[in-house]
Amino acid sequence: MNIVLDGMGGDYAPHEMVKGAVQAAELIEDDIYIVGKEDMIQAELNKMGYQGEQIHIVNAQEVITMEDSPVKAIRRKSDSSMVVGLNMIKEGTGDVFVSGGNTGALVVGSRLILGRIEGIDRPVLASVYPCMGKEPSILVDAGASSEAKAHNLLEYGLMGSIFMEHVWGRSNPRVGLVNLGVEESKGTSMTKDAFKKLKKAPVNFVGNVEAREVPRGACDVIVCDGFVGNVILKLTEGVAMSILELVKSKLMASIKSKMAALMLKPQLKSLKKEFDYEEYGGAPILGVDGPVLKIHGSSTANAVRNAIIKSVPYSKENVVEIIRQSMLELEEVIEKDEEEYSINE
Amino acid sequence: MNIVLDGMGGDYAPHEMVKGAVQAAELIEDDIYIVGKEDMIQAELNKMGYQGEQIHIVNAQEVITMEDSPVKAIRRKSDSSMVVGLNMIKEGTGDVFVSGGNTGALVVGSRLILGRIEGIDRPVLASVYPCMGKEPSILVDAGASSEAKAHNLLEYGLMGSIFMEHVWGRSNPRVGLVNLGVEESKGTSMTKDAFKKLKKAPVNFVGNVEAREVPRGACDVIVCDGFVGNVILKLTEGVAMSILELVKSKLMASIKSKMAALMLKPQLKSLKKEFDYEEYGGAPILGVDGPVLKIHGSSTANAVRNAIIKSVPYSKENVVEIIRQSMLELEEVIEKDEEEYSINE
Repeated sequence: MNIVLDGMGGDYAPHEMVKGAVQAAELIEDDIYIVGKEDMIQAELNKMGYQGEQIHIVNAQEVITMEDSPVKAIRRKSDSSMVVGLNMIKEGTGDVFVSGGNTGALVVGSRLILGRIEGIDRPVLASVYPCMGKEPSILVDAGASSEAKAHNLLEYGLMGSIFMEHVWGRSNPRVGLVNLGVEESKGTSMTKDAFKKLKKAPVNFVGNVEAREVPRGACDVIVCDGFVGNVILKLTEGVAMSILELVKSKLMASIKSKMAALMLKPQLKSLKKEFDYEEYGGAPILGVDGPVLKIHGSSTANAVRNAIIKSVPYSKENVVEIIRQSMLELEEVIEKDEEEYSINE
Repeated sequence: MNIVLDGMGGDYAPHEMVKGAVQAAELIEDDIYIVGKEDMIQAELNKMGYQGEQIHIVNAQEVITMEDSPVKAIRRKSDSSMVVGLNMIKEGTGDVFVSGGNTGALVVGSRLILGRIEGIDRPVLASVYPCMGKEPSILVDAGASSEAKAHNLLEYGLMGSIFMEHVWGRSNPRVGLVNLGVEESKGTSMTKDAFKKLKKAPVNFVGNVEAREVPRGACDVIVCDGFVGNVILKLTEGVAMSILELVKSKLMASIKSKMAALMLKPQLKSLKKEFDYEEYGGAPILGVDGPVLKIHGSSTANAVRNAIIKSVPYSKENVVEIIRQSMLELEEVIEKDEEEYSINE
């Protein structure tokens, strides 16, 4: 299969992108197509002394920057690495797209160029959520779209479950709905409706999950609207960073504590790794008609390599096709559900 | 002035309640009325050898439990410590009420018995939010009411600001709106509308605040709807606890790290104190026509004492009266606002 990598997206592109591709090529057997300015990418490959035949360059002369307006950039920069890469997926010359570029542009571009999977109302950016001391979960919606409806949350749960099962190899992923309390009666009218729908969906729905339990790995798929998802991701980061800073300042408080800190260096280092998004292999844009993985804008080669590795099952396990099939099954469930309502009326 | 304490509310009532009252009496000059089963409270006072004249007992034979349905309990248990205490505030024999009882019942009871301040659409439970290594903020809405409207958030900001200024002595408190990004254009239609309203309100509105910045003390008053407020409070607790557990497990990993941990004991202890809600003197129910402070159900004497101390400025600084006046001023702002709209039409 052909993995397509956005060579120009991200703060350290193309250097770290190319480096990550070279590292990944040693671990997988698939072809990697790096899209971007040919001379720059070739120069990076030369610098690394790459001689193999797995990595190919696809020339694209434009770059979508972080400052670009997403819709305009996708429409106007037709020779950008992102648009060219997404078109390769659409045309079938590429099987999966990995990019560290402008998030908004990647989401918009995926929708516009690849289109939605039939039955999906709203494609969505998911994010791997690091659970401390445990396997990570996936959070959907991480993309902070505007107001969500209950059926969007149903889609999020279904797609997140399929992704976790087939890409992360998590068997029978537990799908949880972020809510005020565990009881079915809790929450807004929207979450109550989402609860009812998720209960009927072909997923392992474990019910409402309180925010307190999210970092403890209470579920494999964390379902919430984009506003709440944004709060969860950013607050987790903010609290973790604040605590680690506080711990650091306490450790530096005295000579004795500094000595102790020195003794703890390996432990503190392994602690930091728990929060390292780079380990997690990218965030999928779920619901578009082709596999796309978003990596962080500040990704280094390590993150690029891990995302490329995860992109293999994302494509080979036919995640997009499974979502399509599940949406058809889901329609039956929803139709039956509506019939029930009409009988009761 | 007369401070009214719910002697029977909380997991460790009446013991810890009475103990906290006795401790507070040594620090303040005001009278404390403990409401509850007279014999039990008297027995606790005797046990502590209390001989002073500052503490009084008001007999109430019923108790509202954590399992009681809030509305039913307030309506039916008219001789409960909570209902008797709230009635003392209404009748003016008490100046401020402190309770560690059933949160829902206390919010409902405050609304039903004290009523709303004129102009306030929705009274709300606020919560002190511990910022790591910094002075705490206040978060409104912490009570997880159902869907909020933009004008509710305006009220939250205004009331939270008045509370922080007059009870916590924070000068010109910074009011921030939890949102997806700092730009005015970010968020849902509701938060965008709330932004416009808060900008015109007589508060020091610092604009949108991202969740990442909340634990760093980005604002003194954290404004958000009850769903998001619940997520912020519980997730902060969950992340903090998970990290501290992880740190602990890392420290216990080897003999060397155990030794280091022993050396760090005082630092680790001071770290724990940063998260100690007991230090913060209770959460106000803002917008009801009388000062009410909610303390945690698991409060010990320490928390009771701190809440009683904070209840003094809450009453003496006329916070309720200032909120009433500000709502009148606010109406002028909103009216002018509406006039502007009609001119533009």
